[in-house]
Amino acid sequence: MPASRAMVRHIADLFSDRAKLMKGSDIRELLKLTQQKDMISFAGGLPNPQAFPVVEIQEICNDILSKNAYYALQYGATEGNQKLRELLIKRHVEKDGMKAEGNAILITSGSQQGLDLMGRVFLNKDDVVLVEAPSFTGAIGAFRTYRPTIEGIWMDENGMRMDVLRETIKHVRNHGGNIKFLYTIPTFHNPAGTSMSLARRKELLEIAHEHDIIIIEDDPYGELRFTDETFPTLKSMDKDNRVVYLGTFSKTLVPGFRCAWAFGPEEIINKMAIAKQSADLCTNTFTQAVAYEYMFRGYIDKHLNNIRALYKQKAEVMINAMKKYFPEEAKYNVPKGGMFVWVRLPKDINVRDMVPRAIQEKIAYVPGDAFYTTGEGKNCMRLNYTNASDEQIEEGIKRLGKIMKEELAKTKTANHTAPPPASV
Amino acid sequence: MPASRAMVRHIADLFSDRAKLMKGSDIRELLKLTQQKDMISFAGGLPNPQAFPVVEIQEICNDILSKNAYYALQYGATEGNQKLRELLIKRHVEKDGMKAEGNAILITSGSQQGLDLMGRVFLNKDDVVLVEAPSFTGAIGAFRTYRPTIEGIWMDENGMRMDVLRETIKHVRNHGGNIKFLYTIPTFHNPAGTSMSLARRKELLEIAHEHDIIIIEDDPYGELRFTDETFPTLKSMDKDNRVVYLGTFSKTLVPGFRCAWAFGPEEIINKMAIAKQSADLCTNTFTQAVAYEYMFRGYIDKHLNNIRALYKQKAEVMINAMKKYFPEEAKYNVPKGGMFVWVRLPKDINVRDMVPRAIQEKIAYVPGDAFYTTGEGKNCMRLNYTNASDEQIEEGIKRLGKIMKEELAKTKTANHTAPPPASV
Repeated sequence: MPASRAMVRHIADLFSDRAKLMKGSDIRELLKLTQQKDMISFAGGLPNPQAFPVVEIQEICNDILSKNAYYALQYGATEGNQKLRELLIKRHVEKDGMKAEGNAILITSGSQQGLDLMGRVFLNKDDVVLVEAPSFTGAIGAFRTYRPTIEGIWMDENGMRMDVLRETIKHVRNHGGNIKFLYTIPTFHNPAGTSMSLARRKELLEIAHEHDIIIIEDDPYGELRFTDETFPTLKSMDKDNRVVYLGTFSKTLVPGFRCAWAFGPEEIINKMAIAKQSADLCTNTFTQAVAYEYMFRGYIDKHLNNIRALYKQKAEVMINAMKKYFPEEAKYNVPKGGMFVWVRLPKDINVRDMVPRAIQEKIAYVPGDAFYTTGEGKNCMRLNYTNASDEQIEEGIKRLGKIMKEELAKTKTANHTAPPPASV
Repeated sequence: MPASRAMVRHIADLFSDRAKLMKGSDIRELLKLTQQKDMISFAGGLPNPQAFPVVEIQEICNDILSKNAYYALQYGATEGNQKLRELLIKRHVEKDGMKAEGNAILITSGSQQGLDLMGRVFLNKDDVVLVEAPSFTGAIGAFRTYRPTIEGIWMDENGMRMDVLRETIKHVRNHGGNIKFLYTIPTFHNPAGTSMSLARRKELLEIAHEHDIIIIEDDPYGELRFTDETFPTLKSMDKDNRVVYLGTFSKTLVPGFRCAWAFGPEEIINKMAIAKQSADLCTNTFTQAVAYEYMFRGYIDKHLNNIRALYKQKAEVMINAMKKYFPEEAKYNVPKGGMFVWVRLPKDINVRDMVPRAIQEKIAYVPGDAFYTTGEGKNCMRLNYTNASDEQIEEGIKRLGKIMKEELAKTKTANHTAPPPASV
């Protein structure tokens, strides 16, 4: 009786505990809306396709497929393309003064996989992870798979606050918490847009040494600087060999290649490689070969200058529009690099209340609370300036400014006329 | 005092419980040895590079980069390229009579990722997974990350034994075990080389219905058949919508693209997509676009005939050499498709004892116990015939036959002269 057969009963009951807690991210749902026609999106973190070196990629693909196709299309080592690994180490040693010891680098399928593998290799349920507050939602999502407690450390304009970090470590350890690692985006932070000062970097490494804490340094934006000001990577200052540095080609070549790397202590890299073997066996060998040639032929540094110039100009267009159209209550940093501006509105504004009107006006942003684990940041929003056209940026900021002003007016009226809040 | 600084103390103590149990696979270590010069390897599962459609790939890469580069190089949806998903569903519906309901397909970074995501989405520690004995080591590794109990179901020449399956389900449930899914490679099994009969396929689906068990049907080799005999996929016979079918381009296009798919109940596919978002955000968009064009332009079916002819011929070379050089005690199947021959020697032979001599003779295979969770299979070995040249196959089988005969002679002498085993 085929017709009477039931589907599997209650699939949801069979899901693992971790899967029962998994939810699609806010940003993901928002990004679906941004695919609507005429939508101006500041919501994603998409590079500008004008920054893709298409001509060079085509040249390299042709060369590889003409001369070295079999190797580039076959299964590869889990650790990654050996020549690419060596060239990345060479670049880090020469450019950043990083030190490599032994088998120090693993090619990953995007830095997102580096984050997942770190979680997989270190986290038991209820272990503690320290992150900046706010922090990258993708990192929070990756760690959450392994069900740790995530502790947010407040930031200011100089990055993670070291007084708060010290307090938090003390508090966690006093309560028996097992801190497995600290996750930071020190340069051109996502979403905050700021960079950790040199003094803070030194202090962070001191604290990590004192408390013997492993650091994940996520650095997707470090190369995207708009000024001559540079920051040493934490990894280059890492005398203890306790930093796992995550680098990526997603913003300096193209994101579609899913080609990134983790650079750190051999013992950790080896364990991540074993974990990666079960996760996806190896990273795409063809696009690893393309990435290698892109560096080997010296295209990357030439091309980086183009990307920097483009994004610097985009950031200026957005900041100029914000000066023109945003209410004075909106506070923000002027970006010195990276891809984002973080906007703070008065505490009594909830930017989620503005989303329906924003969608109606065909403008998208990410509400700030998506970047916190605690529901903070409701008065903040993250704006991306790299993907939209100059005209879209001008027009989008204009619309957003109008919505902000309406919301501020509403709130003022409400504050003026509403009874005092009940003490629930 | 930088010089006196210690590295992180005892990284290994900080590893998660799952990471502490992770070990590199035997096959992985063996494959490293096979990179030695002059080594003839039957150990891997590598497609033959002659089977890579390089000319078509080059044509497609050029077209994409000339006409549609921005889309193909940008971040993509976690679920995968929409056109590729639709074309895969269409192909399955038309070719295999599978039924698609809703959002039924997820593009994964190789089928290895499909296995990992199934583990992630379903397995709590100590849940039960049913697999064939022997089974694919990559699947066992992926599931083990989530620390289930893995129960092996004996196979015979018609695939998984249904009497053993019924017994095992009864036994597990009587002991309070929570069976989350059954994993099978029904067609051209890795490593056993055999296919599940039609009668067994029907009975498997009956048993799964009766006991409400989800099935993973891993089908990397189904298209690589050497005869006119075809088997319906379990998914095409799946009236309950309880089968998650895993397909891949690794053996029909190239493995380096890491492009595969999971096709199954919408509720499971959606949960896997959420899990994938944290695992690697999305699969390589460029090679997804290439895979789409490879199918859309109709190249795949033309090319499949070339691959089938090549592998059929390779299998014949190996079987003919085995008839010539192997001792009569070595038993094996004649492959009707796929990539492997499974060789069984007498029970008192341990093929690991032969490995040092094999390495010395520059010949590599995978010992059978790598495919069991219980230490069985010590008298078996898996031989791959797709990657080596015809001359290498002939020479390699000759060397292997010599080693087998020596080992058999040694064992006979030992049996003849040794005292009866002590009853320990």
